[in-house]
Amino acid sequence: MPTQIPVADQTLLSNLDWRYAVKKFDAARKIPQATWATIEEATRLAPSSYGLQPWRFVVVNDPTVRAKLRPLSWNQPQITDASHLIVFCRKIDVTVADVDAYVADIAAQRGVPADTLKDYRGMMVGSVSSPAGLPGGSMETYTRSQTYIALGVFLTTCAMLGVDACPMEGFDPKGYDGILNTSKDGYMPVVLGAAGYRASDDWLANLKKVRASKEKVFRYV
Amino acid sequence: MPTQIPVADQTLLSNLDWRYAVKKFDAARKIPQATWATIEEATRLAPSSYGLQPWRFVVVNDPTVRAKLRPLSWNQPQITDASHLIVFCRKIDVTVADVDAYVADIAAQRGVPADTLKDYRGMMVGSVSSPAGLPGGSMETYTRSQTYIALGVFLTTCAMLGVDACPMEGFDPKGYDGILNTSKDGYMPVVLGAAGYRASDDWLANLKKVRASKEKVFRYV
Repeated sequence: MPTQIPVADQTLLSNLDWRYAVKKFDAARKIPQATWATIEEATRLAPSSYGLQPWRFVVVNDPTVRAKLRPLSWNQPQITDASHLIVFCRKIDVTVADVDAYVADIAAQRGVPADTLKDYRGMMVGSVSSPAGLPGGSMETYTRSQTYIALGVFLTTCAMLGVDACPMEGFDPKGYDGILNTSKDGYMPVVLGAAGYRASDDWLANLKKVRASKEKVFRYV
Repeated sequence: MPTQIPVADQTLLSNLDWRYAVKKFDAARKIPQATWATIEEATRLAPSSYGLQPWRFVVVNDPTVRAKLRPLSWNQPQITDASHLIVFCRKIDVTVADVDAYVADIAAQRGVPADTLKDYRGMMVGSVSSPAGLPGGSMETYTRSQTYIALGVFLTTCAMLGVDACPMEGFDPKGYDGILNTSKDGYMPVVLGAAGYRASDDWLANLKKVRASKEKVFRYV
């Protein structure tokens, strides 16, 4: 059994307050490899509908490729200057074959006969075979939403580890696909996660975080 | 400036491995009020596109209302048995008035003249006025995806604090709206977050977490 190791409330909140969407990274400072491995592992553990993980995470390390992506991203400097860049991709279609591969994974990793997962498989097959009935009403919206859970886990993880990050939606997914060929494998880019360390002169770093008041954003019934 | 307080890599990963989608909560055990306040605050701090926070979090505490929601949720016991239940709602439409309210918030909270935010306002107005150009191609998909970031932050937060949780999409959003009247204020339910403590006999608690291998889910360019 994995252990739960309490994190102090103040640590958690201070770190979430510390994070912001970095506009200017320190291009000379790289995330240590062990820390990056933790960020990847945390993102891999992200929850998803049925546990189907309808996503792929493309990490772009090649500076030449980063340079090609930047003009497809409103020329935002984070694309080339961040230590690491993840292109969060959603699966274009979740098929019965995907469900079966997942059921086989469960059976293998838990050491149970696949037959005991028959009902669970049936539920999943029913869902992915009727995309109009999926949450959001389409396969695209469904897999996109799931991928944003992984983005939320990634951003929270970075904050806990003291790594800066910037979520980015201002880019051309089709253009990215043209360079990264994600659709060849059945995936499409939906959102980016740049990670690294804030530049000391990023003017946004010292601005107060603006959020709607608790009274406005929460309602109690 | 908020401080970043490092969380050990092993703490983070152990906690994410510890969490799972609880099927059976201990109905007798409640989340302490201070802990719940931290979970709410962390969720409130969640990032979103432009920082627009196109969401509302409806916390259902009334057991009578919970009982009415349960049959609209495949009769899943988490709805009534979890210590707390958040209905994550997306804003149905983000309007120019919402942008202006947000700009006014920024100006007030940062003590800057609204006029200095003119360009930023213009970008946001341009985006929300052309929903087909939003990430995901529609206002609904856009605000839904943002709300899933908050879900990811919520689930990660619960894990760090040692609180169990279950994300739930198996419910009838229109039926929920019929009971909670979220659309009257311009919001629609998209996903649920039940939180509390796992029952000692939840059979899922001791199963190995199943995730695709790093090799399958990550690609390096």
